[in-house]
Amino acid sequence: MKFSEIYKRRVLNESFKNWVELFQEDLMDVHKAHLVMLKDQKIISEKTAENIKRAIEVLQKDFSIPEEIPEEVEDLYFLFEKQMEKIIGDDAGALHTARSRNDMDNTVFRLFLRKRFLMLMDSLIKLTNTIFEKVESDDGAGLIIQYTHGQPANVSTLGHYLSSFLADLLEDMEGFLNSIHNLNRSTMGACAITTTGFDIDRKTVSDLLGFDGIVTNSYHAIVTSHWIEYPCMWLKNLMNDITRLAADIGHKASCEVGILEFPDNLVQISSIMPQKRNPVIIEHIRIQAGLAIGILNGLESLMHSSPYQDINELSDAPVKEFYNGLKYIESVLELLDETLENVSVNEQRVREISTSTGTTTTELADYLVRNENLNFRTAHSIVSEFVKSNYDKSKLKEKFEKTTDRKLNLSFDRIEEILSPNNFVKVRKVTGGPAAEGMKPVLIEIKNKLFDITKDINQIHDKITKSDEEREKRFEMI
Amino acid sequence: MKFSEIYKRRVLNESFKNWVELFQEDLMDVHKAHLVMLKDQKIISEKTAENIKRAIEVLQKDFSIPEEIPEEVEDLYFLFEKQMEKIIGDDAGALHTARSRNDMDNTVFRLFLRKRFLMLMDSLIKLTNTIFEKVESDDGAGLIIQYTHGQPANVSTLGHYLSSFLADLLEDMEGFLNSIHNLNRSTMGACAITTTGFDIDRKTVSDLLGFDGIVTNSYHAIVTSHWIEYPCMWLKNLMNDITRLAADIGHKASCEVGILEFPDNLVQISSIMPQKRNPVIIEHIRIQAGLAIGILNGLESLMHSSPYQDINELSDAPVKEFYNGLKYIESVLELLDETLENVSVNEQRVREISTSTGTTTTELADYLVRNENLNFRTAHSIVSEFVKSNYDKSKLKEKFEKTTDRKLNLSFDRIEEILSPNNFVKVRKVTGGPAAEGMKPVLIEIKNKLFDITKDINQIHDKITKSDEEREKRFEMI
Amino acid sequence: MKFSEIYKRRVLNESFKNWVELFQEDLMDVHKAHLVMLKDQKIISEKTAENIKRAIEVLQKDFSIPEEIPEEVEDLYFLFEKQMEKIIGDDAGALHTARSRNDMDNTVFRLFLRKRFLMLMDSLIKLTNTIFEKVESDDGAGLIIQYTHGQPANVSTLGHYLSSFLADLLEDMEGFLNSIHNLNRSTMGACAITTTGFDIDRKTVSDLLGFDGIVTNSYHAIVTSHWIEYPCMWLKNLMNDITRLAADIGHKASCEVGILEFPDNLVQISSIMPQKRNPVIIEHIRIQAGLAIGILNGLESLMHSSPYQDINELSDAPVKEFYNGLKYIESVLELLDETLENVSVNEQRVREISTSTGTTTTELADYLVRNENLNFRTAHSIVSEFVKSNYDKSKLKEKFEKTTDRKLNLSFDRIEEILSPNNFVKVRKVTGGPAAEGMKPVLIEIKNKLFDITKDINQIHDKITKSDEEREKRFEMI
Amino acid sequence: MKFSEIYKRRVLNESFKNWVELFQEDLMDVHKAHLVMLKDQKIISEKTAENIKRAIEVLQKDFSIPEEIPEEVEDLYFLFEKQMEKIIGDDAGALHTARSRNDMDNTVFRLFLRKRFLMLMDSLIKLTNTIFEKVESDDGAGLIIQYTHGQPANVSTLGHYLSSFLADLLEDMEGFLNSIHNLNRSTMGACAITTTGFDIDRKTVSDLLGFDGIVTNSYHAIVTSHWIEYPCMWLKNLMNDITRLAADIGHKASCEVGILEFPDNLVQISSIMPQKRNPVIIEHIRIQAGLAIGILNGLESLMHSSPYQDINELSDAPVKEFYNGLKYIESVLELLDETLENVSVNEQRVREISTSTGTTTTELADYLVRNENLNFRTAHSIVSEFVKSNYDKSKLKEKFEKTTDRKLNLSFDRIEEILSPNNFVKVRKVTGGPAAEGMKPVLIEIKNKLFDITKDINQIHDKITKSDEEREKRFEMI
Repeated sequence: MKFSEIYKRRVLNESFKNWVELFQEDLMDVHKAHLVMLKDQKIISEKTAENIKRAIEVLQKDFSIPEEIPEEVEDLYFLFEKQMEKIIGDDAGALHTARSRNDMDNTVFRLFLRKRFLMLMDSLIKLTNTIFEKVESDDGAGLIIQYTHGQPANVSTLGHYLSSFLADLLEDMEGFLNSIHNLNRSTMGACAITTTGFDIDRKTVSDLLGFDGIVTNSYHAIVTSHWIEYPCMWLKNLMNDITRLAADIGHKASCEVGILEFPDNLVQISSIMPQKRNPVIIEHIRIQAGLAIGILNGLESLMHSSPYQDINELSDAPVKEFYNGLKYIESVLELLDETLENVSVNEQRVREISTSTGTTTTELADYLVRNENLNFRTAHSIVSEFVKSNYDKSKLKEKFEKTTDRKLNLSFDRIEEILSPNNFVKVRKVTGGPAAEGMKPVLIEIKNKLFDITKDINQIHDKITKSDEEREKRFEMI
Repeated sequence: MKFSEIYKRRVLNESFKNWVELFQEDLMDVHKAHLVMLKDQKIISEKTAENIKRAIEVLQKDFSIPEEIPEEVEDLYFLFEKQMEKIIGDDAGALHTARSRNDMDNTVFRLFLRKRFLMLMDSLIKLTNTIFEKVESDDGAGLIIQYTHGQPANVSTLGHYLSSFLADLLEDMEGFLNSIHNLNRSTMGACAITTTGFDIDRKTVSDLLGFDGIVTNSYHAIVTSHWIEYPCMWLKNLMNDITRLAADIGHKASCEVGILEFPDNLVQISSIMPQKRNPVIIEHIRIQAGLAIGILNGLESLMHSSPYQDINELSDAPVKEFYNGLKYIESVLELLDETLENVSVNEQRVREISTSTGTTTTELADYLVRNENLNFRTAHSIVSEFVKSNYDKSKLKEKFEKTTDRKLNLSFDRIEEILSPNNFVKVRKVTGGPAAEGMKPVLIEIKNKLFDITKDINQIHDKITKSDEEREKRFEMI
Repeated sequence: MKFSEIYKRRVLNESFKNWVELFQEDLMDVHKAHLVMLKDQKIISEKTAENIKRAIEVLQKDFSIPEEIPEEVEDLYFLFEKQMEKIIGDDAGALHTARSRNDMDNTVFRLFLRKRFLMLMDSLIKLTNTIFEKVESDDGAGLIIQYTHGQPANVSTLGHYLSSFLADLLEDMEGFLNSIHNLNRSTMGACAITTTGFDIDRKTVSDLLGFDGIVTNSYHAIVTSHWIEYPCMWLKNLMNDITRLAADIGHKASCEVGILEFPDNLVQISSIMPQKRNPVIIEHIRIQAGLAIGILNGLESLMHSSPYQDINELSDAPVKEFYNGLKYIESVLELLDETLENVSVNEQRVREISTSTGTTTTELADYLVRNENLNFRTAHSIVSEFVKSNYDKSKLKEKFEKTTDRKLNLSFDRIEEILSPNNFVKVRKVTGGPAAEGMKPVLIEIKNKLFDITKDINQIHDKITKSDEEREKRFEMI
Repeated sequence: MKFSEIYKRRVLNESFKNWVELFQEDLMDVHKAHLVMLKDQKIISEKTAENIKRAIEVLQKDFSIPEEIPEEVEDLYFLFEKQMEKIIGDDAGALHTARSRNDMDNTVFRLFLRKRFLMLMDSLIKLTNTIFEKVESDDGAGLIIQYTHGQPANVSTLGHYLSSFLADLLEDMEGFLNSIHNLNRSTMGACAITTTGFDIDRKTVSDLLGFDGIVTNSYHAIVTSHWIEYPCMWLKNLMNDITRLAADIGHKASCEVGILEFPDNLVQISSIMPQKRNPVIIEHIRIQAGLAIGILNGLESLMHSSPYQDINELSDAPVKEFYNGLKYIESVLELLDETLENVSVNEQRVREISTSTGTTTTELADYLVRNENLNFRTAHSIVSEFVKSNYDKSKLKEKFEKTTDRKLNLSFDRIEEILSPNNFVKVRKVTGGPAAEGMKPVLIEIKNKLFDITKDINQIHDKITKSDEEREKRFEMI
């Protein structure tokens, strides 16, 4: 039957091109795994299996694919079958026994995305290592100002700050990794919807493709959107987290704040405005993350109210669009990696802001509570007076004496020291605080998570490698 | 200082009302846990602790809260402190030692949402049980038609269909449960940003509030959005899944399809159009889920490019909006539970559609492949002829003979039987297929997941109950 | 028939409460307009009309509405009809001749939203006036720095800046006003779907309700989503624009930039950190706008793939949710109005930043091009040298002479003047530039738009007032 | 200066490729228009102007563009300037007098999108004409069933149905056209932010590029997002409307409903399931529209909280992404056009459903009200009895007599006629109803709108053509 020209051009041909560009290779692996199983289960004869094997081998070298979808077929698979037919005749059709395009396509999409997601995981691990090294480096110990609601609020360290983001990142990565496991299951054997009357072995096919296992319920296999939605939502969350960091780093590195700095090669400067040294890279991270979020949101809402059936929302066009989104995400991760590797602290500027905004004065009040046995509110009212006097240390002592009826035994130097940004950090040794003691459990937690994630990914990789070998071996042996 | 009237009305007062309506009770628990810890760590004196305890006890019975935020305070906490002050004087302020509104509010929001999420989990478990019972009931064995791309494609059972949705549901529940664990951590001790110089014990406070543990890095504690975003994304996915099921059930229960049916009390009928029996409840599920998704999307995009600082996006207004969304979600779950509990199958209609659309003819082709040793494509071409003859069994035999040069040893009755919907299901005993043998592993998997989820939730509940007792006991003992 | 308890509680009763809370009054107006038309067209008898009139008058004073939906009715309208029946017997039903709940409800929702949208328009006009006054005030002439990509780039005036936002605002308002016109059409007479066989007069009903006209095609009347979607999208755009302004004003008013300032009553300060003077109001504008956007997005995507039929997506629940969104929007507009009314410029800080970042040096280069007949790139290279010398005016003259072989006839004072922020603005008198000459066409354009919008709104208001009077008069005359 | 490799690859090079692929041609037009103006205003000398003209002419034929961005430049414009410099030396830089990349790029993006939007408008007009012809054709008079909440409710005509969608479409087109006018303004002369001290003539440049006029306020010119957001929101609404129609047509054309039909070349069939004739094209319209909506949503939320400054969100990457979205939209429009051109009505099926669901019985009740002087509710109760008797006409007469105490003077044939689908439509001649009389004002309204839109677009096209000629002429004359 001839399709309408418009339908052919706008639907069939677009789909054909997606298959040629993206899914061919994985499809071949599925053919092989399915063939091995059909033969093992004696669903097809040894002779037929050999013929199909031969045809596959020929076409692996010499599959002639036109630029546009040819008149006589609906998709790439039928073209493949047609060419098999030319080589081995009627046996060609036997490869499609006990399967359907529904389960086959879905498995191919999962294989395709699995590969891309694992690559993304590599980029994420690279990024976490960059951050972890920065946290543990001298830069990591550098003082910074932390803001709340856009206002300078506390002194802390770059390491404390970045390890917080690292904690967020690792949570996103754990989630994303779980979503890869959700995806990493075979749908082969579900056939169109309800499996088949042939005595197939779904587990073998799954094993030969390196999956964790099968999607058990055959309807679930061809109808669930989780393999596409779960990664979507995790990557969206990741991108959202990154836009938040970008907004904050952009602020800290802005002209007027200036507590973070970048090397020249990340900064667009102006020959005529030498002070202009803002890293536009941050803006591009924000934009590319935003574009990725747009695509991911689109994929997510595509499922909204789509019938709980096998539908083309679970087919090549959305997977292709996902792939477009992944390119932005890869770029964002690389740009962020470059940004965080190169950022450094301008401690002088930190001290200036700290002094001018009195970010450490709360520590003086706390000191009085702890060491002078004052009530919290009393200490605060004394220090408040000191602030109003524009940090006149005599006034502090005066006010203390007036309030408590005793002298404050602190030298001016000691007061200065208590108010210093370094002291502010040093005393914060509570679990999770910026002092070395506080950071210790933070770092241990991060290391453990990183270790677990890396181990898990390696296991996935290993399983795939082994299954690839096993599949090729058993295909050879047919 | 007096705030602008508009700012007071539109911001401070709205926030005040949220605190009064939603967060008061959890705030009291936080006060107690923090007080116990301050005393244990000797950060405040026993005397002060006793005073504060006394004030809390008085105010628990008799905290006078005006309808509108009073002139002299910024929020509910300050009002509370002011009233404590009237009872115990300066000691009132000591309760706020070594904490800040940042960590305190965040912990309160987590406690509040934890309670609501656990309630939602109860509704979800009720729903899964309803579905599971339906799957295992006689209704579950009822035949239905399954559709692909809106077209009748296979015969299956209601149980096969609903257990697929159950699998999706359980995946969403596992994810949501993980997100509850992410949320179920204490931020107390992070103070404003960087912990404190006081020698606090973050773990004790966490334990006394029944948390899994603390958010270690103190910056992470006050800056992460995951406690709000992760549940958001899981619930959104859940709602999306439900809209898909609703779309499909709506189709299956529609006037012209009619393979699913509902009792009268779920159907809006018309006195003058007696055939009108569509369950509008499905439409309302779709709409309420859509409204929930809107709110959840809003919360998600709220974080987009918000600075990676403590910001009011992580404060009471968004939590309140989340709460509005939860009401829709509760309603959706209840309506879906009611729908699935009451749905039944119209098998006669299933047989009609099956016959008129030839959904079982593929099974006849498969039968020929399996039992008559035919090639897949050959079998299909024979059956295709049979279909074109409008199911003339003699023509089938004729065509078979012409193609294979041998007779087809099947009685007309046997052919009829092979083509029957019941046979179609019966032979599909592959893992995950609709026959009893195929469903077995499906049911086991579901049971295991349900068991694990229920166990996990019970542990969370237990921990909370115990910590509630412990906290009250130790508060009493001050 | 008795509905399922859950369905009643979660659907019927929620809807009932919406009608009682929000739509009652408009429904009464629709009754009256429809009644007048039925009588005029002689579709019902004069006697019946009189009876119905009497019943309406009684119930206007004394309509007894229970808190929960009573057992025997499906919605508020049926309750109303039942109570009419108690007063006038069978004639009660005649009011529903030649109409249906479809066209009636839709008209009520349009009346309800029309009222709220016109109120919003009033707030928007108040806001535009506030901005316009600020632009024309002394504050408006105050110098500010303008940024690109977060970097200081040009000197301009507050008036130039705010009138740009005003231009955006007016474009949004024009669009929103168009969407009100789209909404402001009667659907009465469409009945369920296809009008009726009765000889009704749709125009009269429309006129009596103050509409611009009718939605002509009766299917269009009950199926289009534009009356809800168009306002949605315009208000979303408005909110998005406001979040952009909020982000920029937040930056300009931040601690470290400080070129914009707010009075004390808009600033949350800290007793212990006196420099903290950031207007948190900006953050709340961002958040409330974000929450509104979430709701509006939800309403928008509710329509995605909803069948092109009369559906409950076009019914009370989404209209109620829209109303929730409108409350946020009202709040945002009021907070923004307060913000812009009170903002002022810190010109000293503007001059500091201008000097330290050399934002005016491009003007010196331009001056040389214009007055010394230099090539653009040559001028820039001379000024660039001057900048590198840290603004050493002798070096400028030297470099000029070396490059051009002639002296630069500019005194040091004149150079200073050329580089002054005031001069930078003064020379920019091109249409649309910040100098008075440049601003003139900007202000004229704004005034014209404001005039047109105001006139249009007044006409809508007038029409409504007149139709209200006419309707009551003709109802009285029955 | 050398940029980081990653920054170069991920940002600069991507942008470079966008400029080469999409924006080159429009940039050339901007160069010419700006050059003509600079010369006319005597901002550059005649000699310089001639040199630049010569360089442009050379490069128009022979601009050597490498595949990747070369080391020494930041973007395509600088490469162009560099190559001009090789031809004419220092004068090359003079072309950039009194402009900046900000205003230049923005104008180029507007020119680029204007061209694409006008092409889209052509597709939309083609679609409206297809629908209009269908409405007026015999197919248009074909009877269909209309549904509410998924249930058969009224008989109507295909023309009534499609002209409703046409009304929606035209409203979207009017809005989209308005958004093109919003975009169709020149930003040239805004320079970086605040115009310039040179005496430029913004109107001339605008006229030479065929714009409606200029964006007056220069800050507005480089900061507004409306030129990208407004088209975005209109196209999104258009796509949403189309998904609604697709959902409904998919239902009407589904296997079990079957009141709409498609020719074979739009239907994917199965050799073995001959009844399968559903148009999958509908599903692809839904998906591609969904993917477009995703991209448009992404662009919209990109602006959320982006500072109200010149930002890269208003730059090439988002415009490119918009372009990706436009490809989906073009495809959707073409597929929908193909669908609506080929759809036809299966009237036999309409009559079957009408009979079996009693969709016309309300008309019988209305008839009794109109012609037998019955009360609305009384008539309904009589007809209700008739329905319960399974349409026994004697029972109708009996019940009538019992209720009214008089005979019903209607023959069985006359009753049959009253109940016929054709009569149902015929009597609905109220404005906007499906009868010919009702459709008349519907068609006039549509024609008027189509006429106005077409006229407006033609004027835009004309203006562009004339300005192209004028620009080239004046460029030649330099």
